[in-house]
Amino acid sequence: MAGGDDGTGVPYLVKVEVTPRAGIRDPEGAAVERALAALGHPDARGVHIGKLITLHLRAPDAAAAERRADELCRTLLANPVIEDYRIEVRAAEGSGP
Amino acid sequence: MAGGDDGTGVPYLVKVEVTPRAGIRDPEGAAVERALAALGHPDARGVHIGKLITLHLRAPDAAAAERRADELCRTLLANPVIEDYRIEVRAAEGSGP
Repeated sequence: MAGGDDGTGVPYLVKVEVTPRAGIRDPEGAAVERALAALGHPDARGVHIGKLITLHLRAPDAAAAERRADELCRTLLANPVIEDYRIEVRAAEGSGP
Repeated sequence: MAGGDDGTGVPYLVKVEVTPRAGIRDPEGAAVERALAALGHPDARGVHIGKLITLHLRAPDAAAAERRADELCRTLLANPVIEDYRIEVRAAEGSGP
C-alpha cells in the first residue's frame, strides 16, 4: 500500500471530477436537458451530469497523494470504462477533518 | 425570461458544482468512506459527494449567462435547502454543441 495510510504524512485535500466519457450515453443529463427546456430554457444544451468528490488523505508529498487518489478512482470512485476523471490535490489547511 | 433563450446571444459554457451543505448528512459520502476504509484506505476521511453539471447556453454577455445559470440552479439543478452551488461561466469555443 502507498505510504500515508497509517495516519502519518501530510494532510491533503483531494478533489475528483468524474464525468461521463464523450460518446457515452448520459441519461441523467438528457433528462435534465428536457426538464430545462420544459421550464423555458430551450437553449440550455449539451447537459452532462458528473460527480464531484472531495476527501482528505495523508501522504508523504503531493505526488504520492495524487498517486493514491488515482488508485482510489480506479478502485472505487470512477468507472474508467464509461467515465473520465480528473484529480486535483492541494495541501489541506490545518490537519484535515 | 432573460435574454438569450431564443437562440440568439453568445454561447457560454457553464459549469456548476453542487455540494452538500456543511452540517447536512451526506449518506453517499459516508458509504464511500466506509468502502474506502474496507479497501485499505482508512485515512481517506471527510468524503463528500456532489454533482458536477456542465451545459451550454446563450446570453448577451457573461454576467447575463451567470444570472441565467443561477436561475437554472435555483429552479432545477440544486436544492438550496441542503446543497450549496458554485457557478463558473466561460465563453464556449465555437458555437457550442
